[in-house]
Amino acid sequence: MSVSRSSRPEGAEPRVGVWLVGARGSVATTVVAGRAAVTAGLHAPTGMVTETSLFADSGLPPLSSLVFGGHDTVDCPLPKRAEALAAGGVLPHGLPTAITSELAAADREIRPGGPLPGDTRDPDELISTFTADIQDFVGRRGLARAVVVHVASTEPAPTGSDLPPSSLYAAAALRAGCPYVNFTPSTGLHHPSLVSLAGSVGVPYAGRDGKTGQTLLRSVLGPMFAQRALTVRAWSGTNLLGGGDGAALADPAAAAAKNAGKERAVTDTLGTTPEGQTHIDDVPALGDWKTAWDHIAFDGFLGTRMTLQTTWQGCDSTLAAPLILDLARLLTRAHEAGLTGPLTELGFYFKDPLGEGPSALGEQYAALTAFAERLRGRARGRRSGEPVPEHAGEANL
Amino acid sequence: MSVSRSSRPEGAEPRVGVWLVGARGSVATTVVAGRAAVTAGLHAPTGMVTETSLFADSGLPPLSSLVFGGHDTVDCPLPKRAEALAAGGVLPHGLPTAITSELAAADREIRPGGPLPGDTRDPDELISTFTADIQDFVGRRGLARAVVVHVASTEPAPTGSDLPPSSLYAAAALRAGCPYVNFTPSTGLHHPSLVSLAGSVGVPYAGRDGKTGQTLLRSVLGPMFAQRALTVRAWSGTNLLGGGDGAALADPAAAAAKNAGKERAVTDTLGTTPEGQTHIDDVPALGDWKTAWDHIAFDGFLGTRMTLQTTWQGCDSTLAAPLILDLARLLTRAHEAGLTGPLTELGFYFKDPLGEGPSALGEQYAALTAFAERLRGRARGRRSGEPVPEHAGEANL
Amino acid sequence: MSVSRSSRPEGAEPRVGVWLVGARGSVATTVVAGRAAVTAGLHAPTGMVTETSLFADSGLPPLSSLVFGGHDTVDCPLPKRAEALAAGGVLPHGLPTAITSELAAADREIRPGGPLPGDTRDPDELISTFTADIQDFVGRRGLARAVVVHVASTEPAPTGSDLPPSSLYAAAALRAGCPYVNFTPSTGLHHPSLVSLAGSVGVPYAGRDGKTGQTLLRSVLGPMFAQRALTVRAWSGTNLLGGGDGAALADPAAAAAKNAGKERAVTDTLGTTPEGQTHIDDVPALGDWKTAWDHIAFDGFLGTRMTLQTTWQGCDSTLAAPLILDLARLLTRAHEAGLTGPLTELGFYFKDPLGEGPSALGEQYAALTAFAERLRGRARGRRSGEPVPEHAGEANL
Amino acid sequence: MSVSRSSRPEGAEPRVGVWLVGARGSVATTVVAGRAAVTAGLHAPTGMVTETSLFADSGLPPLSSLVFGGHDTVDCPLPKRAEALAAGGVLPHGLPTAITSELAAADREIRPGGPLPGDTRDPDELISTFTADIQDFVGRRGLARAVVVHVASTEPAPTGSDLPPSSLYAAAALRAGCPYVNFTPSTGLHHPSLVSLAGSVGVPYAGRDGKTGQTLLRSVLGPMFAQRALTVRAWSGTNLLGGGDGAALADPAAAAAKNAGKERAVTDTLGTTPEGQTHIDDVPALGDWKTAWDHIAFDGFLGTRMTLQTTWQGCDSTLAAPLILDLARLLTRAHEAGLTGPLTELGFYFKDPLGEGPSALGEQYAALTAFAERLRGRARGRRSGEPVPEHAGEANL
Repeated sequence: MSVSRSSRPEGAEPRVGVWLVGARGSVATTVVAGRAAVTAGLHAPTGMVTETSLFADSGLPPLSSLVFGGHDTVDCPLPKRAEALAAGGVLPHGLPTAITSELAAADREIRPGGPLPGDTRDPDELISTFTADIQDFVGRRGLARAVVVHVASTEPAPTGSDLPPSSLYAAAALRAGCPYVNFTPSTGLHHPSLVSLAGSVGVPYAGRDGKTGQTLLRSVLGPMFAQRALTVRAWSGTNLLGGGDGAALADPAAAAAKNAGKERAVTDTLGTTPEGQTHIDDVPALGDWKTAWDHIAFDGFLGTRMTLQTTWQGCDSTLAAPLILDLARLLTRAHEAGLTGPLTELGFYFKDPLGEGPSALGEQYAALTAFAERLRGRARGRRSGEPVPEHAGEANL
Repeated sequence: MSVSRSSRPEGAEPRVGVWLVGARGSVATTVVAGRAAVTAGLHAPTGMVTETSLFADSGLPPLSSLVFGGHDTVDCPLPKRAEALAAGGVLPHGLPTAITSELAAADREIRPGGPLPGDTRDPDELISTFTADIQDFVGRRGLARAVVVHVASTEPAPTGSDLPPSSLYAAAALRAGCPYVNFTPSTGLHHPSLVSLAGSVGVPYAGRDGKTGQTLLRSVLGPMFAQRALTVRAWSGTNLLGGGDGAALADPAAAAAKNAGKERAVTDTLGTTPEGQTHIDDVPALGDWKTAWDHIAFDGFLGTRMTLQTTWQGCDSTLAAPLILDLARLLTRAHEAGLTGPLTELGFYFKDPLGEGPSALGEQYAALTAFAERLRGRARGRRSGEPVPEHAGEANL
Repeated sequence: MSVSRSSRPEGAEPRVGVWLVGARGSVATTVVAGRAAVTAGLHAPTGMVTETSLFADSGLPPLSSLVFGGHDTVDCPLPKRAEALAAGGVLPHGLPTAITSELAAADREIRPGGPLPGDTRDPDELISTFTADIQDFVGRRGLARAVVVHVASTEPAPTGSDLPPSSLYAAAALRAGCPYVNFTPSTGLHHPSLVSLAGSVGVPYAGRDGKTGQTLLRSVLGPMFAQRALTVRAWSGTNLLGGGDGAALADPAAAAAKNAGKERAVTDTLGTTPEGQTHIDDVPALGDWKTAWDHIAFDGFLGTRMTLQTTWQGCDSTLAAPLILDLARLLTRAHEAGLTGPLTELGFYFKDPLGEGPSALGEQYAALTAFAERLRGRARGRRSGEPVPEHAGEANL
Repeated sequence: MSVSRSSRPEGAEPRVGVWLVGARGSVATTVVAGRAAVTAGLHAPTGMVTETSLFADSGLPPLSSLVFGGHDTVDCPLPKRAEALAAGGVLPHGLPTAITSELAAADREIRPGGPLPGDTRDPDELISTFTADIQDFVGRRGLARAVVVHVASTEPAPTGSDLPPSSLYAAAALRAGCPYVNFTPSTGLHHPSLVSLAGSVGVPYAGRDGKTGQTLLRSVLGPMFAQRALTVRAWSGTNLLGGGDGAALADPAAAAAKNAGKERAVTDTLGTTPEGQTHIDDVPALGDWKTAWDHIAFDGFLGTRMTLQTTWQGCDSTLAAPLILDLARLLTRAHEAGLTGPLTELGFYFKDPLGEGPSALGEQYAALTAFAERLRGRARGRRSGEPVPEHAGEANL
C-alpha cells in the first residue's frame, strides 16, 4: 500500500476545525501531537488510511489545515499531558518538546465540559453553552467548518430517559451544524430524543466505537472461519489495560457497552453467536498498553476440535489517533460535498457501525474504497466547474 | 453461512473418479473416510465450501458419485491406516469400523506408485504405466471422467532437469486427459518439459500447495495490516508437527519449498517482505497435529511498536480433506463445462496459487463466488438445452 | 525421575478402602479406571509420585490392594460414565471396555449422597447414614481401613452456620474413624463445628483443593520471580473449561472459593499481592479440557517492563486422578503408622494447604521427600520388629 | 523478598575493579549505567539478589566501591552508546544524561581489545598486552583487587587448538591474578591449555553463560514436570531477538554454543532429552528486546496429551546487568576470603554451570543461600579478629 499525499495544495485550502470532546485525554492528546509530528515531517503517517493512494484526489482537507479545540472536564494542560504520555511510552520521547507550540495552541481552545458534580445547569443550558463554545471557535478562528469528534471516556449505559453527557455534546454538534463522529460506545446521537433533530439538521455523521485492536482482529478472523465453513464453538477473550480507559471499563456498566460491540463483530461475521465471554480487566501497571487474548475453539471436518489463540499487544491511543484524523478529514469532506445522515460506508472504522453494512473488514474496505471514488467524482466536478447535482438519495450516498 | 446440498439428484448422475496420488497417506485416507462419513450422515460436511449455499445449483457432482482410486508406494491397507489415524485422534473413534467397506473398496483401486529404489524403468515407461492405471480405472468402473489429485509427501525441490516423481504423475494425468490438482508444494505440472503438453491437452488444472492453517491465517492478517496502513516490521513463524509430513519437511530442501509458499502469502498481501524466518520442526510426539506460532512485530502511528502473536492448533489431515473434496468436485465440473488451463479463480484453496489472482482471502473468496456463479450459468444453459458457447477467452474463465 | 514399585509384596497386604465423595464424577471415574488400567499393565503410572523412587520402601499399600466405594447424588453407572469420558477424550478409547468389571465392582459400592431437594432428614441423620454406609463398606469387604476423599463439585462458600454438604461427609468420615482428604475448595473439615471433633478423633487428614494446573504453574513461577528479586506488578489469569466443573464454577460464589486458592499461591510465593484478576469461564464446548492463560507483568532492573505469558492446556480429571491415588495411599499409610491431625507435609498436592508450610513447589517437594523418609523409617521399624515410639509431637510429624 | 543493604559502611571500604571484556556492548553499558542509577537513588536495585536480605552481613563490597574498566574492539563512547540504548527502550530516557560523568569515567578506562583483522601479534603478545592493561588499571586507580567479567558477543565454537579471543582474555585475567566470570557461552577458561594455569593461580572463577530468560524459565518448569512424574515428550523453542546478540547468534556455530546450554537445562532437570529443537532468529526490528516462545508437549495419567506454552518478552541487557553486578561483588568477596577454583555454588546464575551442582533453580537458590551463609561466617570471623582457617577443601567451598 503506497502512501501518497491525497490533499489539495495547502495554500488553496481554507482551515477546518476538529472539536474533540474529551480534549485532554490520551487519545485526543495523541491526535494533536500526531498531526503536528506528521506535518513537521518527524514521523510517517503510519496507520492513516487517508494518506494512502486510496484517497488520492478525493479532495480531503490537508492535515495542515486542521485546527484543534474541544471540551474537557479536567484541567491538565496538553503539554503536560503529552509529557506524561511520553513517559509511559505512548508518545516518542522528545516529541512533546518538539511540538510544544502546537500543543499549547490546541490547549488554548479547550473549554470546560460538563456537567461537573454540583452543576445546577439543566440539559438545555449545557447544550447551549457547548454550542456557543463551538460556534465561537469556528467564528473566531475563521474556519470553513468544524467536525465534532467524541473521544471521552466510555460512560455507563444510560438507565433512564435523561440525556447522558455524550448526548449533550452530540446535541450541541447538531445545533452548531457540525458533522459528528462518535468514536466511543457511549450514547451520543443514539438517544431517542435526538433522532428527529439528527434527521432535520442535514449534517453527516458516523460511529460508533472505534475498531482499534481485538475487534479489528475479530473482523478478519470471523470471516475466515465463515468462508471456510468451519464451525466456531466458542470465542472467549480477555483484555488487560490500564490508563483511564482501564479504570472506566472496570465499571461493569461501561464494560457492558464496550463488550456488546466486540461480540457483535463475532456474531455478525459468523452468523451465529458462539459460547464464550469477553472480559475487560483494569490493570494499572500496564498504563495505556493493552493486551488482548482471544481463544477460539472450532470444529473442522469430522468434528475435529481445533483452536486458534491470538495475543494482541498494542497501544490504544496510537491505534486510535490516526483513525480519528482519518474520520475528521472524511467527515469534513463529506460535509463540504453536501452529504448528510449516517455515513454507513465508514464501517471500516467502527466496532458497532451505523446501518446495515458488512461486518467483514475486507468488505468494509471495499465500501471505503467506493466512498473514496465517490468523493473523487465530486472533487473532479468541483475542479471542472460543472455543477454536482445533490438530491436526497445521493445525500446519504 | 448456511449449509445446503448443492448437487443434482443422485440418480441422474454419472459416477466420477478421484485418483489420489499418495492414496495411502493420512490426507487421502481422511478424504475417503470423510466422504463416506458425510454421505452416510454420520458427520456434517464441516469445512466443505462446496456444501454451502455458495454452490447451490452450480451443477457440482454429488459427493456420493465420487469413486476413489490412486497410486502409492507403500502397502498399508486403508482400513488399517484409518485405524491408526483414529488411534491418533485424527479420525473419530469407531468411524473406520463403520465405513470399512468404503475403505476396502478404495483400497482395491490403489496401484503401485514409483519409482521405488532399484526401479529400472525410465521416466517414459513410468508415465505410461501410471497413465494405463488411470485409464483402466476409468474404463473398468464406467466413470464419466476422473480428476487426479496430488497429495503425496512433499518432495525436495528438484535440482536438475529430470522429472521428479510428482511430475511423472502429472504427465500421466495429462496423457489420460484428466483434470489435475496439485495440493502440495512439489513440482507437478510446474516443470518446463510439461508446459507445452499442459497447454495442448485441454484440461483444467489447479494448484499448488493447499492452504490449510498458518498460511490461511496469514492471508487474512496480511491484508488487515495493509488496509490499516500499519507497517509490519517482522513476521516470524514456527511450525511443530509430527506424522509423515513432519518427517518429510525435516529435509531442508522440502521445507524450503513449503516455506516459499508460506512467505509468499505475507509478501503478496503486505506488498513488502518483512524480516523474520519460518521454521518447520519435526516433532513426532505431536503426530498429525500441528501447532503453528506466528509473531508479528508492527509499527503503528508515531512509530509505536506493537505485536500480534497467533497460535494455531489443528489437524492437517482434517483441514485438508474437505478442501480436496471441494477441489475434486470443482475440477470435475469445470472439465464437464469445457473449461481448460489454469483455474486461477481457485486461489482461495492454495498457498501459492496459479496466475496473478489476489492473495487476500476475502478477495479470493469473491473470485470463488464469481466462479460459482459462472458454473451456475452453465448449469442453467445445460438444463434449458441452450448451447453454451465455448471460446478461448472463456475457457480460462 | 525413575519409576519404581514402592509397595510391599501384594500377597502380604490387607485390602484398604478408598471412599470417594462424588463417586460418579469425572475425577472419581478416572481414579477407578486409572487404577485398573495401571494395575493391569495397560498404562504406565504417569503422574503418580508414589510410584517414583521417592517412595521406595515407604510401606505404601500396593495399588492393587485398593477397594473403591463412595457416595453420589446422581445415578449414571460408572461404566456408562467412563464411556462418556472416553468419547470426550478424557479416557483412552477402549479402556472402559477393557476394565468394565472393575468399574462395575466400584459402582456396586456407591450409596446415595445427599441432601437431595425435598430431603427431610436433618444434618445429624444424614451424617449417621453416611457413617453407616462407610462402616458397612469396611466391614462387609473386610478392609483394614478406609480413606474418605472428597472429589464432589465445588459448592458455594457457605453463608450461614449450617453445615454444607461437604462438611456432612467430613463429619461422617470422622465418626467412622477414617483418614480424610479434601481435594476441592469446599468447606469439608474447615467448619467451626468440626474443629474439636477433628482434634479428638485421632485420624490424619489433608487438603485442600488439589493443585493440578494453573496453580501448579504459579507455584514454580512465583518463587522464580521472588528468588531473582524481580518485581511482579500484575498477575492476571483466565480459565476456560467445560464439563461439570465449568458449570459449577460459573456460579460466582463457587468460583470465589476456587480463586482464593489460586491467588494465595501467588501472594504466598511473591510475598506481595500484585494487581490482576483471575477468571473462570464455563465453556461447555471444551468439555473436560481446560485452557488457562496467565499474563504476568513484571519489572526488571531500572524499571524495565517485561512480561511472561503461559497457556496451559490440560485435562483436569487426568491431572487430578494420579494425585488422588497418591493421597489415598499416603493417608492410608499415615493412619497405619499412627499419625494424626493435619498432614502439613502434603502441601505439594494442594492449592490451599493446611498449616504454615512452604508455598514454593520445590520446597513442598522437599517436605514430601522428608515425609517419605519418615514413613520409610517407620516401615523399617515395623519390619525389624522394633517398637516405633508414638508421641504427640511426632503424631503430627 | 525484602530488599536490604548488605554491605559494610562505605567509608571503610577499599575500591575494587570490575574489568568488562566487551565493555562497550549493550550489557556492559547497562551494568555501568545501572550501578550509577542505583547508587544515585534513581532506581531500586530490582533484579540484584545481592541487595536482598539473603546477603545481609556477608561482607560484599558496596556498589559504590566498584570502579569500571575493560576491553573492547569498537570505539563508540559509552555516553553515546547509552543514548542509543535509551532510544531503543533499554535504558530509561533521561538516565544517560543524569549519569554522564560516570559513563565518561568508565569510558576512559576502556583499552583496545583484539585481535582485530590484520593484527600481527601472536597469542602470547596479546595476552601480555591485556594483562598489562588490567594491572595498570588496578595500580593506577589504587584498587584492592579487580574481577574480570566476560560479556563480549558469543563467538563461534572453536574448531582447532588455537586459543579463541575469549580464552586470551581469560588467560590475561589469570596472569593478572584476578577472579574471572564468563557470562557468555564462549570458551574462556574452558580451553585445554588453560586448565593447569587456572589450577595453579589460586583465584576463584565462575561461569558460564548467564541464565537470563528462556533458560531461567526452563530451570523451574523442568523440575515441575519431573517432581510431578509427568512425561515430557517434546520441548521446542524459538527465540526472536535483534541487537548485536541477534546478529552474532545468526551464525549457526555461535547459536550451537548457546543452544547447548539451553537444552542442557531441560535434559538435566528432566533426566531425559525430549524431542524438539530450539531456534534463535535474528530479527533486527526487535532491537535488544527478546521474545522466547516455548512449547512443551507432555503426557499425563493414562497417556493423556497436554501442552504448556510460554512466551517471555524481556530485555536481555537489563536482565543480565543486575546478575553481573551480583557476580562481580560475589567474586570480589570470594577472592578476599581466599576462596579459589570454580565456585560451583553459583549455578543459580548460569545456563551451563561449572561442576556437578543441581540444575533446578530452587536447589540452586538453596546452594546460593548456603554460600551467603558461608561468606557471613567469614565476615564475622574477620570482624571479631579471629583467624579464619584456610585449607584446600574449603578453598573450593
